[in-house]
Amino acid sequence: MAQQHLEPTDPLAGPVTGDALAGYLRSQATEFLRALRQHRESGAQAPGAEDPVDAARALRRSVRRISASLHTFRPLLDTDWSESLRPELAWLSGTLGMEHGYESRLERLLLALHRLSGAVFPAQAVSADAAAGSRGNASGGTPSTPTPDRGNLTVGAAKAGALLDRQLTLARTRAHSTALQALGSSRFHAVADSIAVLASEVPLTRTAGTTDLHPMATAAQERLEDAVTALPLVTAGHPYNAEALVHGLSPDPSPHPQDAPWHQVRLLLRLHRYAGEVLCGTNPSVEVRLLTAGQALDRHRDASEAAAAAAAAARTPRIAPATAYALGVLHADQRHEVEAARFAFQQCWQKQAVGTP
Amino acid sequence: MAQQHLEPTDPLAGPVTGDALAGYLRSQATEFLRALRQHRESGAQAPGAEDPVDAARALRRSVRRISASLHTFRPLLDTDWSESLRPELAWLSGTLGMEHGYESRLERLLLALHRLSGAVFPAQAVSADAAAGSRGNASGGTPSTPTPDRGNLTVGAAKAGALLDRQLTLARTRAHSTALQALGSSRFHAVADSIAVLASEVPLTRTAGTTDLHPMATAAQERLEDAVTALPLVTAGHPYNAEALVHGLSPDPSPHPQDAPWHQVRLLLRLHRYAGEVLCGTNPSVEVRLLTAGQALDRHRDASEAAAAAAAAARTPRIAPATAYALGVLHADQRHEVEAARFAFQQCWQKQAVGTP
Repeated sequence: MAQQHLEPTDPLAGPVTGDALAGYLRSQATEFLRALRQHRESGAQAPGAEDPVDAARALRRSVRRISASLHTFRPLLDTDWSESLRPELAWLSGTLGMEHGYESRLERLLLALHRLSGAVFPAQAVSADAAAGSRGNASGGTPSTPTPDRGNLTVGAAKAGALLDRQLTLARTRAHSTALQALGSSRFHAVADSIAVLASEVPLTRTAGTTDLHPMATAAQERLEDAVTALPLVTAGHPYNAEALVHGLSPDPSPHPQDAPWHQVRLLLRLHRYAGEVLCGTNPSVEVRLLTAGQALDRHRDASEAAAAAAAAARTPRIAPATAYALGVLHADQRHEVEAARFAFQQCWQKQAVGTP
Repeated sequence: MAQQHLEPTDPLAGPVTGDALAGYLRSQATEFLRALRQHRESGAQAPGAEDPVDAARALRRSVRRISASLHTFRPLLDTDWSESLRPELAWLSGTLGMEHGYESRLERLLLALHRLSGAVFPAQAVSADAAAGSRGNASGGTPSTPTPDRGNLTVGAAKAGALLDRQLTLARTRAHSTALQALGSSRFHAVADSIAVLASEVPLTRTAGTTDLHPMATAAQERLEDAVTALPLVTAGHPYNAEALVHGLSPDPSPHPQDAPWHQVRLLLRLHRYAGEVLCGTNPSVEVRLLTAGQALDRHRDASEAAAAAAAAARTPRIAPATAYALGVLHADQRHEVEAARFAFQQCWQKQAVGTP
């Protein structure tokens, strides 16, 4: 049970060396190859194959972990090898994530439009559909897609929804093609070959087998803590501080610069969490706290990008004023989601700081 | 010092009878007549006359208190007299309040547009102006008006600001004419005559002089507490509950029905506070708590009406999409102010409930 409370920096933790890193990388590489095989089978419509979406998610999951470990434990790995692999993993992770990004952004925005129209909350309708599907469907069809329909929306909201649907579906289709092209490219095959080698043989430095991983994990934790310290957490802890919507009508079409430090903390939190996986394996007590903080930052990122998508859609030429009005309300709604996510992170982090011995 | 903690329902408080009510009504009637004289002098540009805005505010202030006392302590007053005067006071209070309402709504919306544009916050500029004015102005001019200019606004926000300025200034001008007409009407002169009589002779019932006021004040307090109990305070106490913007895109152009119970509590809180004034005079310790709760509800009402004004402006025919977008952002911003005000009231009320012995 004492094991459950270990932190990477716990002085009671025994030495964990490069061998543990090698084990972690091998298992993640194996996971990658398994997901890749699944993805190919599902693409080929093999009987019993898993959903290609699940397979793509599993691919991204292992790529993120390999990439993070190469970064955090850099001194223990062959420099040429890791320096050449890391940008390739970043490319792959980015390319594979785009499609899912557009899909979830559209879903988030359509759900918000329904909520703002006072319509029946579509999540309920979706659950009801899914339940009906699982009870058996006479026509043998699959349960309806989780993207809510726009039947209950008012005129402005309906037009805004149709516009977002058109724009984000187009972007998603393009991202899908790009991802398929990427998976068929020689560039991808080179990455896959590297990871296939990694599954059996990790290029550690000569001294890595006896080097303690803790200082590097601690450094990752400190980078996170420094970045959190630089966040405006006092403001974020005051509900309704109206900070996230400042510049909401600024002419700058780029994403809000105030969001960047939060996005950075999100990435550093992930590096810290994966470093913990290398050292302790998956530790439920650490995981829950970090996962909750991470979920708040995921929500922050998602709402930030959804707000930007609504603002971008409002710049479409020749839209009706009612459409633009609905997009303005939607943008502000998502910026308040950004603010709410910051508040949630602040609350979670504060508890975490108090809870740590 | 013990006096500071008295509540209207405090069992230690000695009997307060209809004589105290008569004294309160006489002083408020005197206050009304003084404000009316000031208003006439300021309208006639008499030298040294006070600002007509201040005089109108003082008029409304005394009318509200007389009207509230007639309501709360109804059984102690001549029925025919009070029943005929109350609707006249409501008419007067409403008519005199319109102009100020439009003015402060426009100011609130223009300030919000500046904040949302990331422009220099005009309140700071206004303070700086006021400070410069108070330090002595070489040209002898008055400090600039607190209504912010639109110089720093972006195109959509600037157009939205100009539209709101046009619409609300027109409404304000009409309200000003209506108020002036009202103050010159025979209907108003009849009210003023009634109040002039009230300044010397309050039409109490025969038994009022020996009747304790506490039960009636307690009833007013209970009506307030019942109405507060019916509010969704649990939801309001959860920051970022996103409740105020539900129906933000609903096709119904009428004000949000969810706001009505809060507006009602605002009126009942005022009745309770004025009843306290009759019984205890102005009691600083009670006043601060009730004033803070009342200010939250004032902010709720103001933001609710400002949000409705932004939504109404967005329905103007032939506006540019950028204008409509800015009005959508502005509407959502003010609805979040509504939510923030509910949260502030909940926090204040909770403290009050805990703080009461």
